[in-house]
Amino acid sequence: MPSTSTRDRIIAAAAKLFYDEGIRRVSVDAIAGEAGVTKRTLYYHFESKDDLVAAYLEGRDRPNFAWFQRWYAEAEGPLPERIRALFHGLSRAARHEKWKGCGFLRTAAELANLPGHPAIVIGKAHKQRLEDWLCGLFEQDSIREPRALARQMVLLIDGAFAVVLLNRDPSYMETAGDAAATLVEMAPRAIR
Amino acid sequence: MPSTSTRDRIIAAAAKLFYDEGIRRVSVDAIAGEAGVTKRTLYYHFESKDDLVAAYLEGRDRPNFAWFQRWYAEAEGPLPERIRALFHGLSRAARHEKWKGCGFLRTAAELANLPGHPAIVIGKAHKQRLEDWLCGLFEQDSIREPRALARQMVLLIDGAFAVVLLNRDPSYMETAGDAAATLVEMAPRAIR
Repeated sequence: MPSTSTRDRIIAAAAKLFYDEGIRRVSVDAIAGEAGVTKRTLYYHFESKDDLVAAYLEGRDRPNFAWFQRWYAEAEGPLPERIRALFHGLSRAARHEKWKGCGFLRTAAELANLPGHPAIVIGKAHKQRLEDWLCGLFEQDSIREPRALARQMVLLIDGAFAVVLLNRDPSYMETAGDAAATLVEMAPRAIR
Repeated sequence: MPSTSTRDRIIAAAAKLFYDEGIRRVSVDAIAGEAGVTKRTLYYHFESKDDLVAAYLEGRDRPNFAWFQRWYAEAEGPLPERIRALFHGLSRAARHEKWKGCGFLRTAAELANLPGHPAIVIGKAHKQRLEDWLCGLFEQDSIREPRALARQMVLLIDGAFAVVLLNRDPSYMETAGDAAATLVEMAPRAIR
């Protein structure tokens, strides 16, 4: 990969191994090996394994958020149907053989005893950005309590990730989409 | 603890360390140390660390399920309010300083590359039991699609665990309770 910087190659290797096997199972040695660099080179770019975990999630922030935006943009119909499309997108993603849940949530689960870890801070910001985006969509649709509804959507999205990681039945994501569509439809709207 | 069997003492030590620090971070040595037994004694009772992880979750199945049943039994008012009480119970639990999410979901997150692991099988069965119990409550209330609604409740419960583990804001559990109460209230009922 001649056009990829060494730093990006290390992040890509860390992302692959952390997502596939978990944070604590993967050693810095394994990441250096996967990236094809020496440990010395790795430590030139990253001070610690914690920095690598943070860089892994930092690297997932925009692409994951972009998926949600694309699923919404490509959907048709009224708002409840477009929100349902987010869950349909998740269910298709979960059917991929390499799917292993949400990297942000899995990292929070592994590092539950370190709530101030830089990677957790990045995970919180990612989910907050998703919530803010949904809140904006609901505001535009004159929903009276857009923030509360946006929080309910994030709960269903993360619930879908958590449930399907455990039971490996992506149809639960469609069920989450049904719940989300009902809640959006039933939400009181301001009179225009 | 003279009245506790050695096996139970080992499970209690494993449960404490796995829940506090995570599965992969905790060694069999640490568990033996915490339980005050030799490694030889530990291996007399448990063949492997995997067995200990399974025994840890097996031991959480009944107590965790009993909490939900108690929160429901102690609640008053119509069904949506009694369902809301489950989430209020979760939110009180999450305010405890030792709270670190749901052990079943965290284990699924850590062992995402081992979906057939005995501990994951136990976790799936636990959540299925919760879903079946909710489904039974909805059937009694003449809800027309009790299974779908029960699945939506489990999605909100596990979503609450996942979201609050990441952002440490237990008020999201009350928000999940609002969503659950709305969905139960809006669910079509069969005409008696």
